[in-house]
Amino acid sequence: MAQPPSSHAAPASAEAAEAAFYEALQRGDLDALMRLWSDDDEPVCVHPGGPRLVGVAAIRHGFEQVLADGALQVFPERVVRTVALGCAVHNVLERVQLADADEGQRYALVLATNVYLKGPDGWRLVLHHASPATAHEAAELLAQHERLH
Amino acid sequence: MAQPPSSHAAPASAEAAEAAFYEALQRGDLDALMRLWSDDDEPVCVHPGGPRLVGVAAIRHGFEQVLADGALQVFPERVVRTVALGCAVHNVLERVQLADADEGQRYALVLATNVYLKGPDGWRLVLHHASPATAHEAAELLAQHERLH
Repeated sequence: MAQPPSSHAAPASAEAAEAAFYEALQRGDLDALMRLWSDDDEPVCVHPGGPRLVGVAAIRHGFEQVLADGALQVFPERVVRTVALGCAVHNVLERVQLADADEGQRYALVLATNVYLKGPDGWRLVLHHASPATAHEAAELLAQHERLH
Repeated sequence: MAQPPSSHAAPASAEAAEAAFYEALQRGDLDALMRLWSDDDEPVCVHPGGPRLVGVAAIRHGFEQVLADGALQVFPERVVRTVALGCAVHNVLERVQLADADEGQRYALVLATNVYLKGPDGWRLVLHHASPATAHEAAELLAQHERLH
């Protein structure tokens, strides 16, 4: 069956690559997720509290484990961008919906750095470094939501 | 009194900027440390377990707190580099010597992502994202030291 075109198109910008990255997690689509990584270099991936994964094979294995229980409802917010020619450095606040949510806590907050480089096949991830966010970011997000609603 | 020239020279490479960054921490030299940051953009700094700091003023304040008890004996090891034109993405294993070390543990291990961009004033930091390392990295480092000694 044909894949949706967005899964195979070379990302034309770091924003497009980042949107595709979080959409792939939300669909639990490991192949689409892995197509977004650069295979030229030694990409690096750190999940919150996890070890450093270097290279696409280790990174793929890591995401297999992340997605073992199904898709991940994770939404990037409050992106801080630094952009140069052919390089984009994003730091995002990830809101991760918890499957077995108690009344009190519906989601976890994660700080993630995503670095994209532009290569012959469009913009690709070379690094994802995620770690738990703090009460500071939770308050920041809450304040933003209260302004919006 | 004259500063050593290394403190003011524009870093000619990402490696030079990274060396100067860790040397400034080791000397507890906040001014030298802050000269290594880009002031063009909104640089981002995350200390292990800490909030996201955006902009040089917040980053300076964060390092003031880090250095409040004196210099930090921190050594970067096992650097994984991805380099593009004008952009360098490093992930390092920081070995941080603990002041009040017990017999058992002499240092803490931290995973840090350092991103450098080349500007008119040489290579500058635009992002430092640090989080606690794991038993995996401790074992990796131990294995390396055993090979060397």
